[in-house]
Amino acid sequence: MYRLTVQYETPTDPAAFDAEYFGKHVGLVAAIPGLKAMTFSKPTVVGPGTAPYLVAELDYEDEAAFLTTRDTPEQAAAAAHADTLPAGRVMFVGELREN
Amino acid sequence: MYRLTVQYETPTDPAAFDAEYFGKHVGLVAAIPGLKAMTFSKPTVVGPGTAPYLVAELDYEDEAAFLTTRDTPEQAAAAAHADTLPAGRVMFVGELREN
Repeated sequence: MYRLTVQYETPTDPAAFDAEYFGKHVGLVAAIPGLKAMTFSKPTVVGPGTAPYLVAELDYEDEAAFLTTRDTPEQAAAAAHADTLPAGRVMFVGELREN
Repeated sequence: MYRLTVQYETPTDPAAFDAEYFGKHVGLVAAIPGLKAMTFSKPTVVGPGTAPYLVAELDYEDEAAFLTTRDTPEQAAAAAHADTLPAGRVMFVGELREN
């Protein structure tokens, strides 16, 4: 499994962020071809440091499936909308290794 | 699903960290009662920001299962060993919401 993780920082206006994110963005992401699964969580930190406000994980069969989908209009629409969301974010990708 | 995410910063000596982590720590974590699944990845950042060096995700059926396991000797052994690993970390927990 190949995963794109998006971690959002706490927005200035969480209610406005959530309305835009869950009201529109999730639908755009769900339409991306090749996406196998997606999960969301609003975690709580354990110990020192800071947890992201929101973690979104988008799973693809493998890196090739992820790369293929990057040229689709659905991916472009989701990416363009993501840039309008009112919170900073960090994104990273990687192959998942299971124990 | 309830998830404990552990994000490690880049160690000064990645080879030494990996030897200790994959050679010993993963076995201690795998022994924790109630743990349903665990995955690891060494992600690559996409865009601005910094990716963690290593992301470990430990999945439990629900928060009650996670909290129950916290009092076990297996959990205590894994936690004690984690504190000896030569890299900073941030941990957070949360319920996973699927789309």
